[in-house]
Amino acid sequence: MDYTAQIEAAIQRLHDEGRYRTFINIEREKGNFPHAVWNKPDGTTQPVTVWCGNDYLGMGQHPVVLDAMHEALDATGAGSGGTRNISGTTVYHKRLEAEIADLHGKESALLFTSAYIANDATLSTLPKLFPGLIIYSDSLNHASMIEGVRRNGGAKRIFRHNDVEHLRELLQADDPAAPKLIAFESIYSMDGDFGPIEAICDLADEFGALTYIDEVHAVGMYGPRGGGVTERDRLAHRIDIINGTLAKAYGVMGGYIAASDKMCDAIRSYAPGFIFTTSLPPAVAAGAAASVRHLKGDQDRRDQQQTQAKILKLRLKGLGMPIIDHGSHIVPVIVGDPVHTKKLSDMLLDQFGIYVQPINFPTVPRGTERLRFTPSPVHGPDEMDKLVRAMDELWSHCALNRAELAG
Amino acid sequence: MDYTAQIEAAIQRLHDEGRYRTFINIEREKGNFPHAVWNKPDGTTQPVTVWCGNDYLGMGQHPVVLDAMHEALDATGAGSGGTRNISGTTVYHKRLEAEIADLHGKESALLFTSAYIANDATLSTLPKLFPGLIIYSDSLNHASMIEGVRRNGGAKRIFRHNDVEHLRELLQADDPAAPKLIAFESIYSMDGDFGPIEAICDLADEFGALTYIDEVHAVGMYGPRGGGVTERDRLAHRIDIINGTLAKAYGVMGGYIAASDKMCDAIRSYAPGFIFTTSLPPAVAAGAAASVRHLKGDQDRRDQQQTQAKILKLRLKGLGMPIIDHGSHIVPVIVGDPVHTKKLSDMLLDQFGIYVQPINFPTVPRGTERLRFTPSPVHGPDEMDKLVRAMDELWSHCALNRAELAG
Repeated sequence: MDYTAQIEAAIQRLHDEGRYRTFINIEREKGNFPHAVWNKPDGTTQPVTVWCGNDYLGMGQHPVVLDAMHEALDATGAGSGGTRNISGTTVYHKRLEAEIADLHGKESALLFTSAYIANDATLSTLPKLFPGLIIYSDSLNHASMIEGVRRNGGAKRIFRHNDVEHLRELLQADDPAAPKLIAFESIYSMDGDFGPIEAICDLADEFGALTYIDEVHAVGMYGPRGGGVTERDRLAHRIDIINGTLAKAYGVMGGYIAASDKMCDAIRSYAPGFIFTTSLPPAVAAGAAASVRHLKGDQDRRDQQQTQAKILKLRLKGLGMPIIDHGSHIVPVIVGDPVHTKKLSDMLLDQFGIYVQPINFPTVPRGTERLRFTPSPVHGPDEMDKLVRAMDELWSHCALNRAELAG
Repeated sequence: MDYTAQIEAAIQRLHDEGRYRTFINIEREKGNFPHAVWNKPDGTTQPVTVWCGNDYLGMGQHPVVLDAMHEALDATGAGSGGTRNISGTTVYHKRLEAEIADLHGKESALLFTSAYIANDATLSTLPKLFPGLIIYSDSLNHASMIEGVRRNGGAKRIFRHNDVEHLRELLQADDPAAPKLIAFESIYSMDGDFGPIEAICDLADEFGALTYIDEVHAVGMYGPRGGGVTERDRLAHRIDIINGTLAKAYGVMGGYIAASDKMCDAIRSYAPGFIFTTSLPPAVAAGAAASVRHLKGDQDRRDQQQTQAKILKLRLKGLGMPIIDHGSHIVPVIVGDPVHTKKLSDMLLDQFGIYVQPINFPTVPRGTERLRFTPSPVHGPDEMDKLVRAMDELWSHCALNRAELAG
């Protein structure tokens, strides 16, 4: 058995398809976001502007977050020292869970090391609680939800993206007495489109299903206190389990679910991905709690982000760029080919100091490879201007189509 | 469908079996480990000594770790802002990976948010790289390895714990041409026994299998530079993939694998649990790197921990306690019943300020419920004395058997 040859073949397949990923080694400068230093492979450095981060609001450099982290480090040390059950539950974890439960108007919240593991662990554990559970999953759900649904061999139905009629058909076809759960997202991060939350909740009521929503790309940024699209649309009370992250708009790390006391207690008790892993460092929990608390009152920051996204979309549209616009804060420019996307990204970085990572399969479907910009309140007018000019120049240089590519 | 009733039933099952888990809310005091403050449910507090943490060497309060974290927070902010591919690779992550690769004498290392996800993601991804892969897994492997092996429906064989003859039989029974991997641990954390590393490597050579070892409870603590049991026994070069954690002896957070460049490149490229999750905060990576680096040169700390474990085992044995002793740093006292274990733990906490969490199913097999003590260099003679006296008193008070329970 020649294992090395097989590994080489697996890597070669990625090169052949033009989707081998090269990680760009950067260091962001606190107080100077979105500016960063790119550490090139040749050992030299170059200043860059980050245009693809998920620290959507710049909270990763906010003093309330950093002060809370410094304080916790000084008070209690580095790691938590254990799983939540075995010495790893601290006042910092409990405070953060209370802050999150309040954010979503739920009785409880449960922290995980990431929203990935929160999705995976929760969705794979629910069939243990509800034997025979059928999970109805949107076809564009995030990889972590797919992994969670796949595990444990429970029944699953995939409904066409945002297609509530298809979802209804699937629900109708199943035993009315079977336990059911509908899993979907509030904002699909690669296209930036919204899920039909209310229509799905109506169907859930009609068919007696539980609802599970991933608000990872919305928490902190939508709703008057940052509770996500479910808060903005006053639908949070109709969702049984809300999943969110502390690593994007909140600028730190970690993921969670918010739900009833009993639901959280059951997941806490039965999910291996929760039970058998060291809890978040107290300083991380302290920073995240400070961020959640702060953003409950900082509507300005949310407004600025939306304004920035609108301006960037308008300007790119004005140049005939094929952008997708569903009214969210995400700005995807479709290139449609992994090699071209990589080339554009390389040229933006090398020639203009603009860092935007190419997005390829499996993150997006093949043929929809893209550049995905994440404007934020910390991107000033100069940075935006530089980006738009660079895109214009490269688009011409590469003789890429403009309006006709738009879709 | 009455979902609430089903959740209640699931929780009630845990109460009925006496294995409902109550998390103890503590706050460790930096500079004063293992001392902590217990925040009781009634709102009052009580000082406690932590005897069940996995910060085995007290590195979570070491100045080199904390200084590195403070510095990184000041330089670069809180979170990483993205997945490793999309703006979340920083100099801090690269430095830590280099430090780990050097620790294990491997070409590369790959960081994950936890060793749980490192195991789960790597073991579930290997069958994608080696179609038809058969994984031979020790029956007492950690939950995260079991989850990883279970996923993706690849072929698996479970060999009896540490039974190399059984492993040989299983290997012999399979197609010699099939790709194979043997997955096991260097120290099984609940009994504290060692895996037969050399014998397994010999079998792997004989049958052309890859080797995968979990060194989570050994890294930092065994081997002249903390490279684990594989370093101590000079066997690291015979292991294809070494899994470890930064959350126990290193006192911070995160997990990893160390392997060849190509293996790491392939896992990096194909594992959803690596690709789709925000990378560790730079400050966490900086603290972990400082800890790994420091422990490469701090043999005293390792020696002290082993001495402490030996003393505690000797003293508990002297009192006829049923402890398991395989010569590692872990000190399990078998109670054998979930209700008694919980009661002992509660009394230690309430009456003596000694915090040791009861260990129940599914962490250990039913009937082997236990108290598991983790002595460390920061537990002084007074703390040890207090613990031994308390155990003696409670053992008599509860009329538990002594020598005859030992096994």
